[in-house]
Amino acid sequence: MEISSIGFVGLGGMGQGMVGSLLRAGHRVVVWNRSPGPVATMVAQGAEPAADLAEVFRQSAVVSMLADDAAVEALLLDPALLAAAEASVHLNMATVSPELAVKAAELHAGHGIGYLAAPVLGRAEVAAAGQLNILAAGAPEHIDACAPLFEAMGRRTWRIGARPEQANIAKISANYVIACAIESLAEACCLAEAGGVRPADLVELLTGTVFPGPVYQGYGSMIAERRHEPAGFRLALGLKDVNLARSVGSAHQVPLPLGDVVRDALLEAVAHGEGDRDWSAVATVARRRAGLPD
Amino acid sequence: MEISSIGFVGLGGMGQGMVGSLLRAGHRVVVWNRSPGPVATMVAQGAEPAADLAEVFRQSAVVSMLADDAAVEALLLDPALLAAAEASVHLNMATVSPELAVKAAELHAGHGIGYLAAPVLGRAEVAAAGQLNILAAGAPEHIDACAPLFEAMGRRTWRIGARPEQANIAKISANYVIACAIESLAEACCLAEAGGVRPADLVELLTGTVFPGPVYQGYGSMIAERRHEPAGFRLALGLKDVNLARSVGSAHQVPLPLGDVVRDALLEAVAHGEGDRDWSAVATVARRRAGLPD
Amino acid sequence: MEISSIGFVGLGGMGQGMVGSLLRAGHRVVVWNRSPGPVATMVAQGAEPAADLAEVFRQSAVVSMLADDAAVEALLLDPALLAAAEASVHLNMATVSPELAVKAAELHAGHGIGYLAAPVLGRAEVAAAGQLNILAAGAPEHIDACAPLFEAMGRRTWRIGARPEQANIAKISANYVIACAIESLAEACCLAEAGGVRPADLVELLTGTVFPGPVYQGYGSMIAERRHEPAGFRLALGLKDVNLARSVGSAHQVPLPLGDVVRDALLEAVAHGEGDRDWSAVATVARRRAGLPD
Amino acid sequence: MEISSIGFVGLGGMGQGMVGSLLRAGHRVVVWNRSPGPVATMVAQGAEPAADLAEVFRQSAVVSMLADDAAVEALLLDPALLAAAEASVHLNMATVSPELAVKAAELHAGHGIGYLAAPVLGRAEVAAAGQLNILAAGAPEHIDACAPLFEAMGRRTWRIGARPEQANIAKISANYVIACAIESLAEACCLAEAGGVRPADLVELLTGTVFPGPVYQGYGSMIAERRHEPAGFRLALGLKDVNLARSVGSAHQVPLPLGDVVRDALLEAVAHGEGDRDWSAVATVARRRAGLPD
Repeated sequence: MEISSIGFVGLGGMGQGMVGSLLRAGHRVVVWNRSPGPVATMVAQGAEPAADLAEVFRQSAVVSMLADDAAVEALLLDPALLAAAEASVHLNMATVSPELAVKAAELHAGHGIGYLAAPVLGRAEVAAAGQLNILAAGAPEHIDACAPLFEAMGRRTWRIGARPEQANIAKISANYVIACAIESLAEACCLAEAGGVRPADLVELLTGTVFPGPVYQGYGSMIAERRHEPAGFRLALGLKDVNLARSVGSAHQVPLPLGDVVRDALLEAVAHGEGDRDWSAVATVARRRAGLPD
Repeated sequence: MEISSIGFVGLGGMGQGMVGSLLRAGHRVVVWNRSPGPVATMVAQGAEPAADLAEVFRQSAVVSMLADDAAVEALLLDPALLAAAEASVHLNMATVSPELAVKAAELHAGHGIGYLAAPVLGRAEVAAAGQLNILAAGAPEHIDACAPLFEAMGRRTWRIGARPEQANIAKISANYVIACAIESLAEACCLAEAGGVRPADLVELLTGTVFPGPVYQGYGSMIAERRHEPAGFRLALGLKDVNLARSVGSAHQVPLPLGDVVRDALLEAVAHGEGDRDWSAVATVARRRAGLPD
Repeated sequence: MEISSIGFVGLGGMGQGMVGSLLRAGHRVVVWNRSPGPVATMVAQGAEPAADLAEVFRQSAVVSMLADDAAVEALLLDPALLAAAEASVHLNMATVSPELAVKAAELHAGHGIGYLAAPVLGRAEVAAAGQLNILAAGAPEHIDACAPLFEAMGRRTWRIGARPEQANIAKISANYVIACAIESLAEACCLAEAGGVRPADLVELLTGTVFPGPVYQGYGSMIAERRHEPAGFRLALGLKDVNLARSVGSAHQVPLPLGDVVRDALLEAVAHGEGDRDWSAVATVARRRAGLPD
Repeated sequence: MEISSIGFVGLGGMGQGMVGSLLRAGHRVVVWNRSPGPVATMVAQGAEPAADLAEVFRQSAVVSMLADDAAVEALLLDPALLAAAEASVHLNMATVSPELAVKAAELHAGHGIGYLAAPVLGRAEVAAAGQLNILAAGAPEHIDACAPLFEAMGRRTWRIGARPEQANIAKISANYVIACAIESLAEACCLAEAGGVRPADLVELLTGTVFPGPVYQGYGSMIAERRHEPAGFRLALGLKDVNLARSVGSAHQVPLPLGDVVRDALLEAVAHGEGDRDWSAVATVARRRAGLPD
C-alpha cells in the first residue's frame, strides 16, 4: 500500500492548514469542499480540485476533516461512494464520536477500505505549521502506510490502539481535561479578583510555576484580559466536545460531575450569545454568577 | 531593619526543609516545635533550640509554618507573646485563611511588628532544595527586608500585593486550580479506561503535548498507576484547602461549582478511609462511582 | 368524529391497566402487542386481538403506550401504515420526547390523522383503577372527541395546549420534579442518619407536615426502609426520563444543575447494578458515598 | 417541675406569634428583645416586660427564638446569666447548629438547667395561629414538662430523641428537602417555559396531582408568578440553613451534591441583590442562567 495521491475533504481552517502541510511535503492532494471558496484557495497553493466526492475516493488515500458526526454521516458514509472507491485507506482526523468510528470502520471494511481515526490536538495555526499532535488508532499496517502523511502534518503521532474508536476516546478525554482547566481558570480568576488579587497576577503565577504549557498560558491570559475574540476555538464547538465526553460517559456508566458543571456553564454562555466567541468566554458566566462587572 | 537571627516555628516536613535552606545560606535560626523530635533533627544541622515561643519572638524575624488557622491562633496570636516580642517582622508561610491574615496583621501592628503572608508552592523536597515558589504580600519594606530569607528558601518570590491576605487569596486560588486538575485527571482516566484506552497512554499524551509541568505529570502518573502512597500531600489537607477556597467564595459571593464537585469527591474519599493518602487518591472515588475495579 | 372502536398498541403494565379501564367503560378495544402473552390476557378480559398494526389503525381511534421514542418510531411512524389508516386520531400516552411529538404530528397530519400527546402521571395500579392524571395537548377538537376515553382511563385530564409536544414538555418537567424530590430524600435521609436521627422519623415528620402526597410518602418510606423492590418504576426508566429533561434543556439552553446531580447518581446506580430496581434505589448511591452501611 | 411563668427571648415575627399563642393559652410571659419596639407590642397583648435577661431567666421556663448561632452564643450562653438563673428548663426553638446544641446543653447542665431543642416548621402566620409543627429533642421529662407550652404554640410535637441536637439535625434535614424542592420548581418552570408550557399550568398540575401541600403550592405559585415579595422566609436565611446542612454533612462525611447546587444558586442570588427577598427568588437565578427575561 503506497500512497501516491491524497483525496482531502473538508477545507475549514484546520483542513486548509493540513492540506498546506501535505503540499509542502510534496504530496499530490485532490481537494473537495462543500462551499467552493476554500477550494480555490488551496488550488492556488498547488492542490487539484475534485469534481465530486467520487473523485476524492479515487485517490490512493482519503483524508477528511469535517465538523462533526452529522457531516461525516451525510457526506462520507455513503455505500455507493465507498463501493466505487479506489482508496486503500480513509483517515478521519475530525473529533467525532466513538460510535461513528465503529460504524464507519465496519462500513469501510465491507468495501475493503481501511479506516483510521486520527484526531488532532492543535489549532489552525498549528495545523498550518505542520506541528499537530496526531492521535492515531486503527490497523497498524494502515497507520504505518500513512506515516508520510502524519509526518507532513504533525510534530508527533501518538499510537493509541488498533481499534479506530480508541483514538476518538483519547481525543475526547483530552479535550475534557482542557475544558475543565478552562473552567477552573475562570472560577479561580473570579475568586482572586473578588478577594483583591489581580487575575493577571494569578495567571502569571500559575503559568510561571506549576502550570506551564499552552492551555493555562493561552486561555489564562484571555480570561485575565477578558479577551475572547477572535475565537481560537469556538465555544459552541467546545460544548459539542464536552457533550461527546458526556455521551461516552453515559454509554459506559462513567459519571463526569466536573463535565456537568462545565457543560452547564457553556450552555449558559450560549444562552447569553457567546457561542461564536472563543470558548474561554465561558469565563463570562462565572463573572456574571459572582456579580462581577462585565 | 536588618535580620540577624531568625526564630522559626513549625518543623513539619515543609518547615524542616525551609530551616535547612536558611542554615545553608548562613542564617542563624532558633527553632521551636510542639513535639521535640524535629527540634533535635534541626539542631543536628546547626539550628539552635528555643526554650519557648518567647525566645523565638526575641529574634529579629520570625518565620512560621504551622498546619492551619487553628494552630496559628492557638500558638502565635497571643497578645502577651507579641507584647514581649523583639522581632520586627513575622513571616507566616502557611496556607491559612485571609480572615486569619487580616486578624494577625492587625494584632501584630498593634505591637509594632510587621506581618507578612508568604505561602508557598512546592512540596517538602522542594522546600529542602530551597526551590519554593513564594507568594508574598504585605508592606513592601518588610518584603524587601525579608529578601535574603526568600532567596534562601525559594527559587522565586511573587509579589502579590501590600495587604497580607492577598497572598493567601492567591495561594488558595492556585491550590483550587490544582485540585480541579487532579479531579479532571481522575474523571478523564476513568472515561478513557471505560472506553478502552489505557490511562497511562492518556496521561503520556496529555503531558507530552498541552499539559507539561509537575501537576499533570505527577498526579497523572499516580492516578494512572493507582499509586497513592506515600502521600506527597495528604488528601485531608487538600480538602482543607478546597474548603478555604469555598469559604472565600462564600464571603465574596463567588459560586465555585467545580469546587463543589471536588469537595464532594474528597469528602467521599475521606468517608472511605483515604484521608491520609495522597490527594490523588480522590481518583478512587471516580473509579468506584463508575463501577471500575479498585 | 365519534369513536366507536379503539385500537390499542403496547400492553405493558400501564397499557393493560388502561385497556382494562376502557373495557369496563364499555368501549370496544382491539389490541396489539409485540409479544403475544399480554394480548391473551386482555382478550380474556374482553378485548379483541388485532392481526397486525394495520388492523389497529382501522379502528376509529388509536391509543398507544409504548416504552420510548425508539419503539414509537419503529412501530408507528410508518408512512404505509398511516396511509392505509382509517383512524381519525392517534392518542400517544407514552413519555416521549417533544421532538418525536413534533415529527409524529406532522406525519399524521399528512395522512389526515389527528395526533394527540397525552402522557400520564400514575403507576400501573393507578392505570388499572382508571385514576390516572392525563396531560393532554393537541387540537382542541381532538381532545374533545377523546373525552370519553380520558374519562374511562383517568381521574382528571389536564389540558396543556394546542401543540402535542407541550404535553410531553409538561410530563418531562413533572418527572424532573419527582426525580429531584427522590434524590433530596436520599440525601436528607443520609444526613439525618449520620447525625443520629432515624430516617423513618424524618420521613414521618416530612410527610406529616409540609410534604403530604404520594411522592414523599411512597419513595420516602422505601428509602427509609431501604426497600427498593418490587420496582414501581424502574430506575433505568427514571434515568431515561431525566435524560429527556436534559435533552429538552440542551435544545432550549436551560441548564439543569439539579438534574445533572440526579443523572450522575442514577448513572452510578446503574453502574452498580441497580437499573432494574425501583428508582428509589438511587438512595443506595448516597449511602455508599457517605460510607454508610448497605 | 411545673411551669408557672415563661421568660421569652427574641421577638421577631416568629417569636411574636409564639408569645401571642402562649398568652392566649393563659400563660404568664415575661419578654425581652434586643430592640424595644416588639416588647411594647407584646406588652399591649398582655406580656410583661423584662428589665434584663437575668429577669427572663428567673422565670420557671425560658423560651428563646433568636436568629442564629451567633445571637444565641452572644446573648444566652453566658455563664453568669446561667449561674443566677432560676429556670428549670430552656427551650431553644431556633434553627441552630447541632454543635451549638451540644455546647448549650452541656453548659446548661453544669448549672442544673434542662436544655431542649425544639425548632419548628411554619412561618410567622402559622406561629401566630398556634399551629406550628414542633420538633422536640432532649430529656423526656423536660419535654413532658413543656407539653403545655407546645400545646399552646403548635399543632403537633414530633419527638425526635433524647439528645437536643437530634432535633436540630431533623430540622436542618427538613429544610434541606424544602430548599431542594424550591430549586427543582425553579428549574422545572424554566424548562417548561422555554419549551412552551406556562409555568402556572405546570405548578397547577403538580400541586393538583402528586405534590399537594404548602411547599409546592406556596413556592410554586410565587415562582410561576415571579412574585418574591413580601418575604415569607428571607433568601439569606435560606442560604444560612443550607449551609447548616452542608456543615453537618462535612462533620459526618455526607456529600450533599443537591445542596451544593442549591447553595450556589442562593449565593448567586445574593450576589445579585436578592438576599432580602423571599427565598423563592432563587428562581431568578435559573431564569437568568437560561437567558429568560426577568
